[in-house]
Order: sequence, then C-alpha cells, then structure tokens
Amino acid sequence: MCELLGMSANVPTDICFSFAGLLERGGRTGPHRDGWGITFYEGKGCRSFKDPLPSCDSEIAHLVRRYPMKSTAVIAHIRQANRGGVRLENTHPFIRPWWRRNLTFAHNGQLSGFRQALPLEQGFQPIGATDSEWAFCWLLQRLAQRYPKRPANMLTAFRYMARECQHLRALGVYNMLLSDGVYLLAYCTSQLHWITRRAPFGKATLIDSDWVIDFEQETTDNDVVSVVATRPLTQDEQWHSIPSGHWVVFKQGEIVARSRF
Amino acid sequence: MCELLGMSANVPTDICFSFAGLLERGGRTGPHRDGWGITFYEGKGCRSFKDPLPSCDSEIAHLVRRYPMKSTAVIAHIRQANRGGVRLENTHPFIRPWWRRNLTFAHNGQLSGFRQALPLEQGFQPIGATDSEWAFCWLLQRLAQRYPKRPANMLTAFRYMARECQHLRALGVYNMLLSDGVYLLAYCTSQLHWITRRAPFGKATLIDSDWVIDFEQETTDNDVVSVVATRPLTQDEQWHSIPSGHWVVFKQGEIVARSRF
Repeated sequence: MCELLGMSANVPTDICFSFAGLLERGGRTGPHRDGWGITFYEGKGCRSFKDPLPSCDSEIAHLVRRYPMKSTAVIAHIRQANRGGVRLENTHPFIRPWWRRNLTFAHNGQLSGFRQALPLEQGFQPIGATDSEWAFCWLLQRLAQRYPKRPANMLTAFRYMARECQHLRALGVYNMLLSDGVYLLAYCTSQLHWITRRAPFGKATLIDSDWVIDFEQETTDNDVVSVVATRPLTQDEQWHSIPSGHWVVFKQGEIVARSRF
Repeated sequence: MCELLGMSANVPTDICFSFAGLLERGGRTGPHRDGWGITFYEGKGCRSFKDPLPSCDSEIAHLVRRYPMKSTAVIAHIRQANRGGVRLENTHPFIRPWWRRNLTFAHNGQLSGFRQALPLEQGFQPIGATDSEWAFCWLLQRLAQRYPKRPANMLTAFRYMARECQHLRALGVYNMLLSDGVYLLAYCTSQLHWITRRAPFGKATLIDSDWVIDFEQETTDNDVVSVVATRPLTQDEQWHSIPSGHWVVFKQGEIVARSRF
C-alpha cells in the first residue's frame, strides 16, 4: 500500500512540515520504499518532483523538504508497489490536462479486474503499468464523455468524479486525492484523514519525527489550511476520518462539498 | 527569444556540463531571465524541473546542475518571454501523453495569428497563454487525426510532425525540440545546432564559463551522445547548423532521419 498527502489553503503555504512527516514513512518509520512524488500548483501551472528511490534516501526529496515552495494546492504520495514495477513511470502523482487545467491524481490501494471493468479508448491510455494510472485515465474518459463542453462550475465536475469513484471502489481498495489546483477531492474506501487549521493556531508535533511546529508563528489570522493524509501526521491535534465510500472536496482550505456522513 | 537544449544518447548520460552552459545564459551571460525547465526521460517515465525564476538564481536549477541525473533523452529550455506572462504555466518544456508515451516539447521563437491559423478542438486545449504550447497542442491534434491507431513505427509519427512544422514555420520563428523519450526531433527555422560525440573523445570548454571537460574520462568507447542547442555551447568543437526549414531526428545518439540539406 501507499500513503497519501494533500493540502488545500487560502494563501500560498509551504508543506515542508507535513511532507517531512510523510518522508519519514518512505523507508524509515514506514515501509513505503518504492518511490515518492509531490505536485505543487502555482496558478494554473504546477510542478512535480518524483523519484523511484525511497524518499528517506532521495536527494531531490531533501531539496523539497528544505526549500519552502508555497502553494495553495499540493498532492504527495509515497509508494509501496503492488501493481507495476519500481520505475519512474509508475510513480505518483500522475498529471493529465483537462479543459485548460492540469489534473493531478494519486491513489492508495489496489484494484482487481480493472482492465476488463474499465475499458479505455484512444486518448486515455496509461503510460505506466499501475492500476492507479489506469483508474485515473478511466475517470478522465468518463469526464470527457460527460462534459463535451467545459462545465461552467468545475465543482460539478468534481462532484461527478466523486460519484464515479463508486465504480472504482467496487474493484478493491481505492483511496484517492485529485486536484485541478483549485479543488482538492479526497475519496476514501479504507483510510483517509483530514484536519483544518485556522486561528487560533497552536503547536503540533510530528508522529514520525520530533519536529514541533508552532503554527501561530508561521501564519496570519486569516489563513485556513486543510491537510489530508492516509494516517494522521501529528500527535497533538484532532484529525477527522473519512468513512468508507465517502468523500470531501476542499477549496482554499475550506470544505465546499462532501458526501453525507 | 529563448534557448533550447536537447540530448540523445545510447547510454544513460548526465547533461550537467551542457546544462551548466545553458544556465549561464539564463540571466548571467544571456538575457533569458524569464524561467527555465528541463525534462529527463527514464524509461517511459520522465521528470521535469522548472521554475519561473531566472536559472542563474534558481535553487532548483542548482540542484539539477549538481545532481547527475542520467538519461538517454533530455529537453531543456531557458525563456525570454514574449507571449504569455512569466508564470509557471508558461514555462517550457510542455508535456502531454500520446499513445502510452510522454511527449515533451520546447520552442524558441514567436508565432503570429496562431489562434486563427491553428484551431484547436476539445482535448487539445493549452493550459498557459504561450504561442508555444498552442503550437504543441495543434501538433498533437494533427497527430491524433492522422493516427487514430498507434503507428507501428513511432519514427513515422516523428517524420509526420516534422513535415507539419512547415505550417508553423509559416507563422513566424519556430525552432523546436520534441521527444517521446526514444526519438528527439529538432526542427529549425532560424537557429539550431547539433554535435555528435563518439570515440575518440576529446576535451571541450564551455563558451559561457571556464568549465573544461575531458569526455574521455567520462565515457566508454561505445558511447554516442548528440547534443542540440540554439547556439553552440562549447568553443573547441565543431557544431553543425540546421538550415532554415530543415529537421533532424536522433535516436540513441545517432541521426535516424533528416530532411535533405
């Protein structure tokens, strides 16, 4: 299995603290040694760093942890391979264009019989060999079929994708993060937690290292930052669990849509 | 205008030396201060580093220069913006999937009347505001129209794209590098040079810094490495110029197709 990390914020925020916690699980405190990746949005553009090396040994990961890239939407992933070899093309997140936006996708879980259940047409072929990228291509294909014209409100497209995830859930474990740089959709079938931080800010300690942060020192009163992770990253805060088959959409740090749970 | 750098090699080769020369032109010895980017292929996967900051000031660029990532196909670009603001989404190279491959594209030049001359359909919309990304989307659209099934030999698709570049040349200055990780197509309308290095290897000195390299020490007798650049990067080697309206395709360091010149 793998671990997911996502962030949605109303002001450009660095994710160094949370990413450091995730990295520890990439071979040191966790078994996810088969690569890692992170995508930061800046406006309509985004940049990704990824490596098939364990994140705890990766020079590029250390740069990302050290160098505070500020973003309002981030998706990160550390991998413990099941389907698809330990190669760069199988390393999450995956990115594809859709209606003048970059869509970024990361998955934790494993799907069975996906090639038969999710046939793909021209233009929606995966590059690597993972069930994850296949599922992403299928979601994009559904999206293109449903919206031959760009939807007036992209949130309707995210609601549509969240509902379509039911078909993926039927094939196995499917925890997913998906973003266009504005919205961040978290879909859960087994394990996914979120926390929203806002004033008054407090202190937090990483579970996977002894890094303590005082968010009060790092933020202004208007900042709203939500973090989504497979397992809670801090030990002294209250994280919320998303129940199986449910989903949450964040925008600028706030929840803007969710299934009823 | 911008500057382009590409590499094609028969063994995974680091591009630190050539990239260092290019970086100097990104704000120090050259005026290209509006961002930079580089894409390295590893198998079917690829990874990009990009920044809207000048490359000579970019911490990420320094990592890329320091950290020898080995690849058989690389495309890099430093930007002096004309169309499209200095933003991440306007920073080359651009990457799009096509038939289970990542296609990577970078352009030097400027096109006029491209929106009218190159209409784009659904699925081929640019994300940023550059003429370059628009031209890339149009090439992909032509490719999808011409090859509704994957061509048996991808070289035929590269030959087709090279011919289609005539339409882009009619709109202005269009120097381009395009790769799928196997083939590297260099198309020239004003300025593009290449060199192929093979045994016996010699020494070379960067034009833009005092770095001298002895390729003999860095290679084996079987290595073949071609480098393509807007302007020659070294002062003591013989670079070849591609004439206006002509093109060359490299694979594993060797020329495998070219227009007659």
